[in-house]
Amino acid sequence: SDKTAWDFLPAGWTTEELQTGEVVSASGQVVFRQADDSLRSVSFPADFEPITQLESARVGIITAEMERVAERETHLSPAQVRDEVAAGRMVIPANKVHLQHQLDPMCIGRASKTKVNANMGASPVSSGTDEEIEKLKWAEKWGADTVMDLSTGGDIDGCRKALIENSNVPIGTVPIYSMIIGRKLYDLNMEIILESLQHQAAQGVDYFTIHAGVLHEHLQYVKERLIGIVSRGGSLLAKWMIDHDDENPMYTGWEQICDVMREYDVTFSIGDGLRPGGLADATDQAQLAELCTLGELTERAWRKGVQVMVEGPGHVPLDQIEYNMKLQRTICHGAPFYVLGPLVTDIFPGYDHITSCIGATSAGYHGASMLCYVTPKEHLGLPKKDDVKQGCVAYKIAAHSADVALGIPGTRDQDDELTKARAALNWEKHFELSFDPDIARAYHDEDLDVDT
Amino acid sequence: SDKTAWDFLPAGWTTEELQTGEVVSASGQVVFRQADDSLRSVSFPADFEPITQLESARVGIITAEMERVAERETHLSPAQVRDEVAAGRMVIPANKVHLQHQLDPMCIGRASKTKVNANMGASPVSSGTDEEIEKLKWAEKWGADTVMDLSTGGDIDGCRKALIENSNVPIGTVPIYSMIIGRKLYDLNMEIILESLQHQAAQGVDYFTIHAGVLHEHLQYVKERLIGIVSRGGSLLAKWMIDHDDENPMYTGWEQICDVMREYDVTFSIGDGLRPGGLADATDQAQLAELCTLGELTERAWRKGVQVMVEGPGHVPLDQIEYNMKLQRTICHGAPFYVLGPLVTDIFPGYDHITSCIGATSAGYHGASMLCYVTPKEHLGLPKKDDVKQGCVAYKIAAHSADVALGIPGTRDQDDELTKARAALNWEKHFELSFDPDIARAYHDEDLDVDT
Repeated sequence: SDKTAWDFLPAGWTTEELQTGEVVSASGQVVFRQADDSLRSVSFPADFEPITQLESARVGIITAEMERVAERETHLSPAQVRDEVAAGRMVIPANKVHLQHQLDPMCIGRASKTKVNANMGASPVSSGTDEEIEKLKWAEKWGADTVMDLSTGGDIDGCRKALIENSNVPIGTVPIYSMIIGRKLYDLNMEIILESLQHQAAQGVDYFTIHAGVLHEHLQYVKERLIGIVSRGGSLLAKWMIDHDDENPMYTGWEQICDVMREYDVTFSIGDGLRPGGLADATDQAQLAELCTLGELTERAWRKGVQVMVEGPGHVPLDQIEYNMKLQRTICHGAPFYVLGPLVTDIFPGYDHITSCIGATSAGYHGASMLCYVTPKEHLGLPKKDDVKQGCVAYKIAAHSADVALGIPGTRDQDDELTKARAALNWEKHFELSFDPDIARAYHDEDLDVDT
Repeated sequence: SDKTAWDFLPAGWTTEELQTGEVVSASGQVVFRQADDSLRSVSFPADFEPITQLESARVGIITAEMERVAERETHLSPAQVRDEVAAGRMVIPANKVHLQHQLDPMCIGRASKTKVNANMGASPVSSGTDEEIEKLKWAEKWGADTVMDLSTGGDIDGCRKALIENSNVPIGTVPIYSMIIGRKLYDLNMEIILESLQHQAAQGVDYFTIHAGVLHEHLQYVKERLIGIVSRGGSLLAKWMIDHDDENPMYTGWEQICDVMREYDVTFSIGDGLRPGGLADATDQAQLAELCTLGELTERAWRKGVQVMVEGPGHVPLDQIEYNMKLQRTICHGAPFYVLGPLVTDIFPGYDHITSCIGATSAGYHGASMLCYVTPKEHLGLPKKDDVKQGCVAYKIAAHSADVALGIPGTRDQDDELTKARAALNWEKHFELSFDPDIARAYHDEDLDVDT
């Protein structure tokens, strides 16, 4: 697609790029100079007030958060950040409430460095809020750019609140997990959905995974699979649709959901409820049918002024990763792609931080903007503190290697400095430049001949 | 290159593919049916007796080792194995002496599954023969297809002998390491080189890394690098050339070396003494100049009837891996490419089994036939037993993922079976199908919801 979010403006908006003209800032009309020096004219309803980063960007405003992002992405100017956000190719997940705590604004998009998300969360049988906060700080230390709270039990509301209050990074959630606590899935309805989203948005959650792309008509394709639906949100909604013989309420209520999201500038992470759960199911009709719906939902969210990223697989053989990334970028008009791994083989449980960071590196190189980590416990159990570290390190490797391969300015500098220290046999500097100096120091034996 | 080893026959040999004709087996002349059903005619000196696998293949013979390889590579017939060996695209490293011990013949080449090598070896300050044998059996258990003995000290001769007598897999060495023990590098000469190679060949070593591609004229290019020459063999020979102001003796004496290799059917692993030691030095003039010489040496070895594989980098950003693999296959006419990693970032010492298995997966997919493992101790110290396991597992992941992506028949079956076991929540079968069932079992918590 050569379309961008500019092609999906709200009703009553128009825009054009001007050859010549003057900068204008008036009620219902702006002309602003873009980072590439061109002029863009935008007209909109006279009473419009921007709330989200996308809306600010559309009317030419460089927000404080965009300024901060440009400081952190040293190769980008504030105007470039604004233009990427306006085009829908970049998101700044920064809930207005979370900004009042300790959130340090960051961005996700192809123009910026590749980001890493770490999952955590309390469950009914293990780990409480204190342990989750400890994992949060640990994940931040090891380079996580965002953290998802996937709590499914315990003090789920308190844990979420504590994570938001203590985090410097954006917090994402999968709100359906808490919508079904204390009630039957069957009883889920639009009122409950909106109330729950409103509650979490008011708490300060920065992005929501919402599995609105799984449609009733897609479910027929799942029968062909080896492992059906592995997304928890996707399978809950599939069951709801079957039990009610009705369409996915997240899909039918999308515009109402957008209204809640916009109020706090919560960013969408549109979930891929039909992501493949094994190599055999990758790039199948179920996945592709849902991807088309994800593209439609992207357009609809942009028309409501809400920031969007889109989630992706999962389990994908290496030869299919490049075209999967390119397909998503085409169908979803460049909206940032947020992928889970993908794992490139299924037979190494216990090592899936490695099997998946291979896929993640390729994904980052070919089109993904954020990589959701996988820990050694994937498929086996819940991650403990060291698993969080192992997952973060593997994914920092993937993200950094992709950025080096993409030639993002400055990304290889530290590699080159370390190479020079290695050449000079300057061990102390070698350790200091290492991502994990303590491990490098511990592994260093006196018997090493660096020239071997 | 659309050339193969058929284009580099010894003097006095000719060959052609026939449209029609009859199978012939006579002194100095054979016509045999190839696996693709075509007929090939080969004429050669009447007194010729094949010694190496390559020579047998050239005269149409399917050796016992080729039969065994076809048993192990279930998608290949014995005739296909012979034809791949004859074309130079596959090697069977099987020293005649090692075959009298416990060697189980295997092959390395693009038509077969991707292979993994594990390095080990005693050093002056650590680890003796018993420990190396233990590491050998451990590496075999964790899937190493070949093992290199890189001993640089201790009872270097006894250790090599013990590894050969105890291994089921081919053993490779870098003979220059022992050539300089007990003498000055400056005193190295052709007589010592040939004597040392003869000794190791008679012991049963299956393949030799020989850094014959580093020429005197290449050394000027090394000055531009951040980290010069990191190959130990390459740097020893560079120093020899500078001190003598003379050409690399491995290069000038190549045909004499071939004669020793042929007698025992030792396979060449032509070393890349100028492999890059950091991302900044990848694909530079030094590396490329040497690669051209590696192509020339391949042709010369084929003319002497010796099997050849070619070694490759090292440290390469992800975006350069595909064309590096394709370049080697072109320049070296499809001779199997045996790569070390490559690492795709330099700043993660302690995790280089991961940084390099990312590159190795891409290398395996795009053209490499064997992947030399890297352990977590790379650049820091010598691998201990658990490091050997971590290196092997990471590289089995790389090799298997590449084979799945290449679509080698049957390679994905176990992944699919495991996916089915996962879907059925059959934990016991899930563990059994895992590459490391003990780890998978140990990591499994009772609190897991597989649908999360």
